[in-house]
Amino acid sequence: MESLTLYHAPSSPHSRRVRIFLAEKQLEIPAVTVDLGKRQQFSDWFAAINPRLQVPVLRVGDESITEVPAIQRYLEEVQPDPALLGHRPLDKARITMWDRRVDLDFFAPALEGIRNAIPGLASRALSGPYDYVQIPNLVDRSRKRVENFYTDLEARLRSSTFIAGEEFSVADITALVATDLATGGLKIPIPESHAGTRRWYSCVSSRPSALA
Amino acid sequence: MESLTLYHAPSSPHSRRVRIFLAEKQLEIPAVTVDLGKRQQFSDWFAAINPRLQVPVLRVGDESITEVPAIQRYLEEVQPDPALLGHRPLDKARITMWDRRVDLDFFAPALEGIRNAIPGLASRALSGPYDYVQIPNLVDRSRKRVENFYTDLEARLRSSTFIAGEEFSVADITALVATDLATGGLKIPIPESHAGTRRWYSCVSSRPSALA
Repeated sequence: MESLTLYHAPSSPHSRRVRIFLAEKQLEIPAVTVDLGKRQQFSDWFAAINPRLQVPVLRVGDESITEVPAIQRYLEEVQPDPALLGHRPLDKARITMWDRRVDLDFFAPALEGIRNAIPGLASRALSGPYDYVQIPNLVDRSRKRVENFYTDLEARLRSSTFIAGEEFSVADITALVATDLATGGLKIPIPESHAGTRRWYSCVSSRPSALA
Repeated sequence: MESLTLYHAPSSPHSRRVRIFLAEKQLEIPAVTVDLGKRQQFSDWFAAINPRLQVPVLRVGDESITEVPAIQRYLEEVQPDPALLGHRPLDKARITMWDRRVDLDFFAPALEGIRNAIPGLASRALSGPYDYVQIPNLVDRSRKRVENFYTDLEARLRSSTFIAGEEFSVADITALVATDLATGGLKIPIPESHAGTRRWYSCVSSRPSALA
């Protein structure tokens, strides 16, 4: 395997998705902390690693892999066990489907609701190299989307042990991080009546990887 | 291989991403057209196929796989040649990274700019089972994001034959469909001065699969 280094930030939910993935695979790789409080993501040294100014980055030899699912894909390929992206073709497709739903309909709106409301991010509604001003109407819409996703998630978790089926997968990692983001940042916890989701959350959040 | 059926709509850009993918693999599978003009995506028969009321859907036996990258993952697994998601681990990661960037920073904003502006979609700014009203400010922001992505794409295509490297991949399919969406729906064509992107577009749009 080529030399690997993870660039990440402790408070970054994207980074946490990769850290939990690594922990589930019991992979330990050298890590460099990017201090977002000190705006190190905008520093020259980090821009040389990732011109998109975002964490996490997996450095593979002298190449930077960004985007959480791309980093996870690489790690799954070089260390297939335990499989977090699936075994057989249909498992892989089902896991990709659920992970994407969780990512785009839960994780992304939770983050959008937070980023469009924080006073310090008035011109930084989206991360990356370009500035975009906040859109206040997105805060309400994001909150509605998170609430609607909780409804969908409960329907799924009443009949399924984990999100993509009977085995733990990357979709559970994404949903765990999104749930913590919604609960903490948006103050929208899992509704009391959602017994299936609460059972699932209790299970996944008590895995040792959740601390990563 | 289990029995496969594609549910798609001719005018749906998501559906086109799957059709081009199938054409590149020279895979022909039975297809059912969902007539969006007749609102068939909201019909009972289609809701039974996909309760999320979205096309495309790949039916595998009696299971529905939705979400374009999940459908593409399944097809790549059951027919690996030609590889559109990469061969070696680092290729796979690089293709996943570029495809996601194109998807989230180009395809998605192009569609967002269109959906938030069409009078007939006033309460349907997002597809799916829930109604969300349009947010006019998103139209301007989406247009800026598409323009900024053209800048990034040009920087990439001045030094790379295809988007993820020297081989055609799924990232080129996503970007082709996004370019046509931006050009047609948003009236933002590739800037005249972007020679690298124009060279690339000419190449990928003349592949027979582009007609799919």
